[in-house]
Amino acid sequence: MDYNEESLKLHQLKRGKIEIRSKVELKTKDDLSLAYTPGVAAVSSAIGIDKKLSWKLTNRANQVAIISDGTAILGLGNLGPEAAMPVMEGKAIIFKEFAGVDAFPLCIKTTDVEEIINFCKLIEPSFGGINLEDISAPRCFTILKRLENELSIPVFHDDQDGTAIVVLAALINACRVTKKDIKKLKIIINGAGAAGIAITRLLINQGVADIILVDSLGAIYDGRPDLNDFKVQIAKQTNESKIIGGLEKAVIGCDVFIGVSRGNLLKFEMIKTMAINPIIFAMANPNPEILPDQALLAGASIVGTGRSDFPNQINNALVFPGLFRGLLDQQIVHITNEIKVNVANALAYTITPTKNQILPLITDKNVVNAIAKAVKKHY
Amino acid sequence: MDYNEESLKLHQLKRGKIEIRSKVELKTKDDLSLAYTPGVAAVSSAIGIDKKLSWKLTNRANQVAIISDGTAILGLGNLGPEAAMPVMEGKAIIFKEFAGVDAFPLCIKTTDVEEIINFCKLIEPSFGGINLEDISAPRCFTILKRLENELSIPVFHDDQDGTAIVVLAALINACRVTKKDIKKLKIIINGAGAAGIAITRLLINQGVADIILVDSLGAIYDGRPDLNDFKVQIAKQTNESKIIGGLEKAVIGCDVFIGVSRGNLLKFEMIKTMAINPIIFAMANPNPEILPDQALLAGASIVGTGRSDFPNQINNALVFPGLFRGLLDQQIVHITNEIKVNVANALAYTITPTKNQILPLITDKNVVNAIAKAVKKHY
Repeated sequence: MDYNEESLKLHQLKRGKIEIRSKVELKTKDDLSLAYTPGVAAVSSAIGIDKKLSWKLTNRANQVAIISDGTAILGLGNLGPEAAMPVMEGKAIIFKEFAGVDAFPLCIKTTDVEEIINFCKLIEPSFGGINLEDISAPRCFTILKRLENELSIPVFHDDQDGTAIVVLAALINACRVTKKDIKKLKIIINGAGAAGIAITRLLINQGVADIILVDSLGAIYDGRPDLNDFKVQIAKQTNESKIIGGLEKAVIGCDVFIGVSRGNLLKFEMIKTMAINPIIFAMANPNPEILPDQALLAGASIVGTGRSDFPNQINNALVFPGLFRGLLDQQIVHITNEIKVNVANALAYTITPTKNQILPLITDKNVVNAIAKAVKKHY
Repeated sequence: MDYNEESLKLHQLKRGKIEIRSKVELKTKDDLSLAYTPGVAAVSSAIGIDKKLSWKLTNRANQVAIISDGTAILGLGNLGPEAAMPVMEGKAIIFKEFAGVDAFPLCIKTTDVEEIINFCKLIEPSFGGINLEDISAPRCFTILKRLENELSIPVFHDDQDGTAIVVLAALINACRVTKKDIKKLKIIINGAGAAGIAITRLLINQGVADIILVDSLGAIYDGRPDLNDFKVQIAKQTNESKIIGGLEKAVIGCDVFIGVSRGNLLKFEMIKTMAINPIIFAMANPNPEILPDQALLAGASIVGTGRSDFPNQINNALVFPGLFRGLLDQQIVHITNEIKVNVANALAYTITPTKNQILPLITDKNVVNAIAKAVKKHY
C-alpha cells in the first residue's frame, strides 16, 4: 500500500478525523431543558460555588488538550500550526480508541515560549490534562518545566517523556532477550533534541553508567563551547571518557545505538566498530538512521525502528493513551520519574519479548490497562 | 419535572455531555498507518506547502470554538470559567445534534480584553469559526469588533447577535399576527448589556424609527452623563423625544416591550400605560420581567419569554446552529447586517405564526436548513 497516497485520499474523503458527539439524548423539549436551559443553570451554579465540581459535572475529568505550535512536526520540521493538525487529530483518535480519553487538538499560531505557557494556563479550567506535541527544542524544555510547576493538571510532552518511556521499555526487553544488564550498557544517543535529551535523562535516572549524547556537531562533552543550558547540564552527567568527535568516533565500542536524529546517518561500517551483537534503535521518521536488514547484516542482535512496516516498532503511541488513562483516573498531577519507570516496566512486561518482537503491537488492547494500572501516586 | 434536580443528576451520571469521536476506523495496523504515522506525514506536508488545504484535510472546516470567560453565565452573572462549562457543553451538543457542526467549548481563565482577543488569534488555525459566549458587557463589544476585523474566520457573539436575530424574527412574526408595521413601532428595550445594545442596533438597521433603551439608571438619552462609549453612540440614534426617567415613565405609549434585564421588573400597571394590545417579550432568565398570564391580563396581544415551559420561547438556540452551518458551508467570514436580517426572516417564515406560536420550536428540524440557506455572500 502507498501510505502517502492512501492517507491523503482518506483525509480528503473524511475531511479530517475527529468529531464532537453528545453523550446525552437531545430529542425532546425535556432533553433540552435538562442538557441546556433552564436545567443547566443549577449545574453552573453548583460549580460556581465549588469549582472542584467541574471534575464531576462536566467532561473535564476525561478531557486532554493536545497542544502544538507546529515547529517540529514528525521528522518534517517547522511547517506551522495548520500542518500539525492531521498529526494531532491522529493522536486524538488514538487517545479515544485505545484509552477512552477525549483529547482535543489545539494547534496554535505562536512560537513564543511565554505565549505558549500562558495559553496553557488560560485553558486549564476546561481540561484534565495537557499533552504537548511537536514543539521544537530547546523551547519545549522550558515550556514543560514551567507548566509542570505552574499548572494543577498533569502536563506531558510526548516527544520528550513519551519517547523516553517507550525507549526504556524497548531497552528493558532487548536486555531480557539478550540477557544484558541495562546498567552496564554503553549507550550512544544520536540526536540531542526533545527526545534525545529526555531519553538521556531517564536512562541516567535508571543508573545507566555510560552514555554519550551526540548532536549535529558531534559528541557532547563537559566544556564544549556552543552548548545550550540543557546540553551543559547533560554534558556533566555523560561522556565520562570525554570523547571528542563525530558519530563515527563516538559509536566505537558502544553496546546500544539509539537514533532520534535523521535518516541514513548510521553506516554499516560504524556498526562493525560497536561492541559485539549491538542493539540498534534507529528511530528517525520516516527514514531510519539505518535500514533493519543492513543493521542485522552488520551484526546487530536486535533492531527497532519507529515504523510500523518493520518489526520492533518503537512508538510513543504505545505509551500516551494508557499513561493519561491512569493520570486522569487517579487525578495525578505530577508525572514523576518513578511513574515513568513503572510505566516503561509495565509496557515491557505485557509480553515475553523475542528478537523480532521486543514491544507489543500498538493495536494490542492489553497495553492501555497494564500502563494505566502502573500509574500510581507514591508518597 | 424539577429541571434543576434532574439536570444535576444527569450531569453527574454522564460526567458532562460531550465526547470526541473518530470519523475513521482504527482497528488494524494499516488503519493506524493511514490515520497516523507514517501516512499522516504526507497530509501534514501538503498543508505545510499550502495552508488552505487545512480546510479540506482536517476537521477545521466543520469546527467551531465556543469561547467563554464565565463572566456573564446565563442570568447568573460572573461565576468563572469552570462554571461556564456546562452551558458551553450544552451549546456544543445543540450545534452537533441540530446542524452537524463540531463545536468545542474552551472556558478560559482570564477576563482581560487583550488576552481574550489574543487567545482567539492563537487558535484560529484550528477552527472554522468562533462563537463567543457569556462574556460580559461592555468588554464583549470591543472583543467582537476587534476579532471581526483581525481574524479571517467568522466570529459571532451569541449574546449579542444571536439574541438580536431571534428577537427580530419574533418581532417580524408578532407583526404578521397583529398586522402591525415593524417600522412604525415604538419599542422600549429594557436592559443595555450585550443583548440590549445588539437588539437596538439591528432594529435601527431595520428602520424602526422610535426606540428607547433603558438601563438600570433609566432611559438612555443623548447627553446623559455616565454613559460608556457604546451607550453614547446608541443614545444619538434612539429616544428622539428625549424622555428622561425610569422604566415606568419610558414605557408609556410603547407598542413593544423587549426585556433582556431581570425578573419582575415590568409591572401589570405599566402595561396598562402602553399602547393598545402591546407586544411583550419578557426574556429575562430564568424569571421573566413579567409572567405571561399577568401580561395577557393587562392587555398584551402577544407574550414571549426565554423559557421552554411557556408558549413563544424566544431562544438563541433557534439561530446559532443554522447560522454556523451556513457560514461554514460557504466559508463566509463576515456576518453582515444583511445576513442577520436574512436569517431572521428565514427563521420567521419557517412557520405561519399564531398568537401562541410566533416562532418554531427548537426541536423543529426544518429551522437549520432554512437558516443555513439564508446565509449567503452578498456583493
